[in-house]
Parts: sequence; structure tokens; C-alpha cells
Amino acid sequence: MARRLVVIGGDAAGMSAAAQARRTSSPDELEIVVLERTSRTSWAACGLPYLVGGLVTNPDSLIARTPDQHRANGLDVRLRHEATFIDVEACTVTGRRLDSGHVFTLPYDELLIGTGASGLTPPWPGIDAEGVLQLRTIDDAVQVEQLLAAGARRAVVVGAGYIGLEVAEGLLARGLAVTVIERADAPMGAVLDADMAGGIADAMRAAGIDLRLGTAVTGFGTTDRRVNSVDTAAGAVPADLVVIGLGVRPNTDLARAAAIGIGPSGGIAVNDRMQTDTPHVWAAGDCVESQHRLTGQPVVIALGTHANKQGRVAGTNITGGAATFGGVLGTAITRFQGVEIARTGLTEREAAAAGLDAIGVSTEASTRAQYFPGAQPMTVKLVVERGSGRLLGAQIVGGEGAGKRIDVLATALWNRMTVAEVAAMDLAYAPPFSPVWDPVLLAAGKAANAL
Amino acid sequence: MARRLVVIGGDAAGMSAAAQARRTSSPDELEIVVLERTSRTSWAACGLPYLVGGLVTNPDSLIARTPDQHRANGLDVRLRHEATFIDVEACTVTGRRLDSGHVFTLPYDELLIGTGASGLTPPWPGIDAEGVLQLRTIDDAVQVEQLLAAGARRAVVVGAGYIGLEVAEGLLARGLAVTVIERADAPMGAVLDADMAGGIADAMRAAGIDLRLGTAVTGFGTTDRRVNSVDTAAGAVPADLVVIGLGVRPNTDLARAAAIGIGPSGGIAVNDRMQTDTPHVWAAGDCVESQHRLTGQPVVIALGTHANKQGRVAGTNITGGAATFGGVLGTAITRFQGVEIARTGLTEREAAAAGLDAIGVSTEASTRAQYFPGAQPMTVKLVVERGSGRLLGAQIVGGEGAGKRIDVLATALWNRMTVAEVAAMDLAYAPPFSPVWDPVLLAAGKAANAL
Repeated sequence: MARRLVVIGGDAAGMSAAAQARRTSSPDELEIVVLERTSRTSWAACGLPYLVGGLVTNPDSLIARTPDQHRANGLDVRLRHEATFIDVEACTVTGRRLDSGHVFTLPYDELLIGTGASGLTPPWPGIDAEGVLQLRTIDDAVQVEQLLAAGARRAVVVGAGYIGLEVAEGLLARGLAVTVIERADAPMGAVLDADMAGGIADAMRAAGIDLRLGTAVTGFGTTDRRVNSVDTAAGAVPADLVVIGLGVRPNTDLARAAAIGIGPSGGIAVNDRMQTDTPHVWAAGDCVESQHRLTGQPVVIALGTHANKQGRVAGTNITGGAATFGGVLGTAITRFQGVEIARTGLTEREAAAAGLDAIGVSTEASTRAQYFPGAQPMTVKLVVERGSGRLLGAQIVGGEGAGKRIDVLATALWNRMTVAEVAAMDLAYAPPFSPVWDPVLLAAGKAANAL
Repeated sequence: MARRLVVIGGDAAGMSAAAQARRTSSPDELEIVVLERTSRTSWAACGLPYLVGGLVTNPDSLIARTPDQHRANGLDVRLRHEATFIDVEACTVTGRRLDSGHVFTLPYDELLIGTGASGLTPPWPGIDAEGVLQLRTIDDAVQVEQLLAAGARRAVVVGAGYIGLEVAEGLLARGLAVTVIERADAPMGAVLDADMAGGIADAMRAAGIDLRLGTAVTGFGTTDRRVNSVDTAAGAVPADLVVIGLGVRPNTDLARAAAIGIGPSGGIAVNDRMQTDTPHVWAAGDCVESQHRLTGQPVVIALGTHANKQGRVAGTNITGGAATFGGVLGTAITRFQGVEIARTGLTEREAAAAGLDAIGVSTEASTRAQYFPGAQPMTVKLVVERGSGRLLGAQIVGGEGAGKRIDVLATALWNRMTVAEVAAMDLAYAPPFSPVWDPVLLAAGKAANAL
């Protein structure tokens, strides 16, 4: 009789694990059951702001693989099945069919937890009002669409991080009056050092956003349970539609209730094979904590790339293979209209918090040869360990073509290079692509000189 | 009394060396004399095709620094001064002032040779006809402009390498009928494996270029010393204007005459401090050979990036500092209209020639999330050492955003990573920039599986 793998959660991590396990074991050896609470699988949450903004027009295009496609690949995908309890002694998952209310109990030989993360929602009065939402699922995007159709004109976005910027851009593109409220004194405050954020605030304001920095939300005004304002210490802002973009926290309730170990950063603790501390229980994706390659510390970073890799690693190991997850560097990228924003490794602030003796060196450069049409200014900030000269982190803000250069610096970090080594590298040059000294080389050279 | 550094050649390598030597030594310590044959310094030869094509409109914008700017920085720049002989025993350079014919002899304490490279011009009958030219200097571009003004309508480009593609694109943009004649069976034959070149040939033809592959030029037809056709084994092609783009060879005549050592690849032999085998004589830029980091073999690669780095290394060492040039990977990039073309390391053919047991694995990918507007197809070919799994080289052909990803692979090569290690890296992801699995990760994963 086949053994059974039960996967809780049918998005990136869960479906990557299931698909990889299917590739490496036959249905005779392993039955694979996926329990998914919603009616969709493998959706690209990162694409939602662009669905709202109208750059992406077909919600279905955000579905990497439908439940039926997964089924055709030999996976038993059960939609609107919510897992409610894991019994790690009996090796069973108990759950509920959301449509019928029917309760089920499913024995497992191996279990993968891929429960993802949820948006942070502070206990502000009125946060559950109609018109206040997050952008986590396709249904959320549909809800925005309905509010727009119903005449919403004034949008408030709470939080000026990745999601905040992307949603604000999208709502602006749809013709709404957009206010962004951010508690910190700069946008992208959790992501960039403050000295790198000025250009982003300028770009947001130039685009017509009413950006209110250093402003704390205190609650929401409502009429008949519908939001009509966002209240702040500095007064109320009228709103027909509010999107909360304050980051996420791992969904660990199921794991906690089963006494599966949670790590110090708040995610499910796993080793580099994606095993939890509990026999036959694996976990992957936004619900786990990962090791930061530079600090060695556990961190929670919710990102589809890690979820996919971790799922694949788990799927390989569950079926008797050998794979490890290499850890994270905190690489990330976004854009606000023409301004590309990217980072990897540690910011100057994070390096100091990690007890590292580091300096930050910023360099102004050009995305292309300066005489070439379309050349855009860009700033590269490198964070470097004093003494060793080792690169610790990088931040880029600049025009088209700037952002993805972060990958070169992420690769340098992955290999523990010094900035002098980075400056010597043989990177590609032609006028449409780069100045003779690529911005990465220029920045590394300047940092090496500053040491 | 100050010692004297004489620099032969006022382009990238020479001026980088001179400028660096000036930064690190005072005029009291070191006099720096630059002998430059033309009337310009520090011109960006790589920009010339775009000047011809009209994307760059001001020739002066190609001048990174004028002679007067260099002079203001304390360099004694002597234009239209041609060095004709180096006496390494007496430590003197003899030369000629091209305007007056006046001969001079200049003693040196240290000498830097930065004589660059010249375009290859086979001894074809008629190659010195009016209307047959290369594109090496701003004056060449001016000459093209004059031919266009005089009514040239039919252009033939000989060679489908970097310069050939770039010039063909430029002449096409100016409304000329363009034929490209290439001896090999594929464009970019010296640069890419043949299986990567198909899309480029298609793009050239789709753009309206008459691309003649596998066709050998035999000479040129002329009327009154003006070119009127390019003769090939397969017939004559009418031409008002011919641009030869067959690559370059190092200018080593001066060095050879002075018995300064020439390396096996035909460039001046230097160590990693940019010293020749002759005391007090240094060399840098297109005239030298460099060490390939993967094969350890000397190679001649004419490229502004290397020239700048080597010049800076030489300038540092000449003034008593310590710097080394890290070698080359053969990283390069260009584009033909919307098709970006890049490479680094060894092609499959080059790996075989170097005696390495390698496989090539090609992967189709997308520059952005597939659902995101502007997503373009791209192909990544990785060359991998069998057994070790070590990355040996990479080639990319694809739409906007594809090419510069080569830098990630160049950085991986620089660090001698395996493809499995590359596949694990933390690269930046957001829908406008990348699919969840960046094409680099996807290609590395596929190559790792293929081993």
C-alpha cells in the first residue's frame, strides 16, 4: 500500500513540494493529498497590485497551475478543505470541508506544512469595516474592483513598504486620489537605509500621491459599517477604500497547537532539509523561518522565490532524496513607476544591529553610457565590513535597468567577496547597457577606496 | 628633479594609467607626458555605431575627457605626436609631430604602452578604395556621415560579429539598404555557439537586412578608386559604402621593434601588475594579452572595460602602489534592435578546445513574470563541466532585460561556482523584473539536473 504525504496549503511552497515529491516517486509508492482552504492553487500574490492597477488584466493569468492541472499530474488536490488540527502522535490531520461543514480526519506518513503568512492588522477600531482590506488573494483584488465599480474615488494605503508602493501605483493608475500613510519618516523604511529613500518619497509626491510620513493611524471612521475615513494623530483622511500594507507574519497556529517548534523569529523552525523538530513533519514557505547567510540568524522573509525553493527541497527529501536550502540574503526588488528599488544583504542599520563594524558608501552612476539615449541616474549604496573589506549588503535606487543589478551584488554576497574583489570583476559592457565602469564596479571601487 | 612617465596612446588604457599615476603622485615627483597620434583623447569607440545610427547625435559626447580636461588635471598631453621608436637601453621614445614633421626624442623613467588595436583588413583587392572603411575613430564616423550626405544608399557590412551587427543596425536606421556578408554559417560565430545564433539571423532578416552567411568576400569593385561593389564567391553585391567589421589585432609594432616580449596570443606579454618583460616598460589595454581566468591561457580581448582597469592597475604600480589585474572571463554584450546578446566564460566549442569535458544546456525562459506586460522570451545556455558541475560559461539571447543577466553568471564564474550552487542563490524577484524562478536560477537548475 502506498504511503501518504499530506500537504497543508496549496500555494507556492505546498504545491512545489507536492509536485517535486510526485516527480521523484510514483503514485504506487506515495499518495499525495493537498488540503487547500481556498478554491485556488498556486496563485502569484506578487502580481495582485498589478491586477488592481490594470497592468495585468486577466486574474487567471496569475494562476501558475490550476487545481485540475495539478490533478492531471497525479496530485489529489482538495479545495475548500481547511486543516484545523494536527495530531503528531497519531499522525493525522483533522479538518473541515468549508462547503459542507463536514469534518474529516486524514492519516499521514509524512506531513508538509505550507500555511503561508497573513497580513498584519493592528487592533485599530474599525479595521473590520467594509472597504478596509489587504491584498493577499485574488478575491481581495476582486473586492477592490467592486469598490471601484461602486464609485470609490479616494484611496488610502496604510504602509509605504513594498505592497504599499505597488498598490499606491496601481490605484493611481486607475485614477483614484491616493494618500499613503506611513508611521516612519521615510518610505521603504524596513528595507532601505533612510539616506536611500529620499528619491522614492520625491517620486511618490511627483506622481500625485499625498504621502504622509511620520503619521500614525489610530483607527477608521465608518458609516453603516463602511469606511469613510482613516483617523490619524494628525487628523482624519477621507477614504472610500483602504488597503493595509504593513507586512506579514507566518501562519503558525496549527503548528503551535501541535507543539511543533517555533523559532525565535516567529516562524516554524526547520533545518536546512526543511524538517521541523517533529518526526515526519516538514514545513516550507512563508510560515517558516530561514537562516540568513550573513548573520547566521533565523529570519522570517515571506517571498515566493524562497517558498518555491524550500518546497522543492522538502519534496526531494520527503521522497528519500537529498537536498538542502541554502539560506537567504534578504534580496528584494520593486518599483514605483520609473523608480526601481532593490536591496540584498544587510543595510547599514541592520549591520550595526548585528554587531558588525560596517561603513556605508553611496555612489551615483548611470544605467547606460551617459551619452546613450535612455541613460538614467542610479544610486548604489554598499555596506562593507571595516577591516576585512567584505561586502555585507547593497541597496539600489534608480531608473530603468538599475534594479536587477542587485543580483550581481547578491551573487557577490553569496560568495563572501570583498569589495576590492567585486571591483575587479569582468562584467558586460556596451553603451546601451552600461557605462564602461558598470555601476556595480564603480560602487565597489569607491567603497574599496573608502576603507 | 621629477622623474618622467611617458605614456604612448591617449585613449582608455593610456589615460587611465596617466590619470591614476597623477592621483597617486605629485607633479614634483612625477612628470607625465602623453603622446597621442590623433587630435583626441579618451574617446568611446564602442559608441561609434550609435553615432552612425543617429541614436547618439553629438560626437563630442563620446569624449569621456578632452585633452584640455586632462591637462587641467596635470597631464602633459601632446596631440598629433606619433611615437615611432622605443629605445629600451637608452630609455627614450622617438617620435614625430604629425603637423610639422618635427622629430623628437623623449627620455623616460617609466614607459606605458597603450597603443590599442587595429581593425583586421585582409589583403583583398580594392580594400583601400574610397568608401571602404572601418569604424574605429570619430573621424571614421564623420566619413560615413559624408558618404551618406553624398548620397550613399547601399551599404555592405563585412562580418557579423559585434561591430557588424551594431553598424548594420545603425545604417538600417539611417534608411540604407544593408547587406551583411559573413564567412561563417551563423552571425556572432566567434562569440556564441551556433545553436544560439539562429534567433539573431532571424532578427536581422526580419529587420530587412540581406544577410549572406557562408559567403567569402574576395575583393571590391571600384570606379575611379571609389567602391561600387563587394565581390564574393557567390557574385558581386552593389555597394556605395562598405564597413569592415572583422575584429581587431593588438598594435604591437613598436613593442616588437624594441624587442619587448610578445605573448603567444599576439598581444604584448604582461604580468598581472601590467609589467612587460622589459625594465620600466608597462603596457595596458587592447595591445596586451590577458589571462583567461578559466583556462589560465593568455587571450587578446579588446574591450574598454579591461583597458580602463589595466590602465588603473598600471598607474598605481608605476607610482609605487600595489595593484593587480584579475584576468578576464570574456564577458561581452551587444544588441541587435530588440534582441540582446551576451556571453561570459567559455562556449561549448571553446570548452572542448580547452580540453574540458563539458555539456551545454539551453533553457527557455521569460524576462519578466509571464503574465506581466513586456515579458519577453529569452534563452540561457550554460556550459558546465561534467563531473564537477562547475559552471564554465554562459550565453544569453533574448528580449529587453535578458542580456545584463550575464553579469550574475560572470560573477558566479569569477567565484568558480557549480550550477547547483547557482540554482540555490537568492536573486531578486518581482513580477516586473523576473519570473519567480529567475532565468538564471531556472537555467542553473536545469543544468544541474542534466549532469
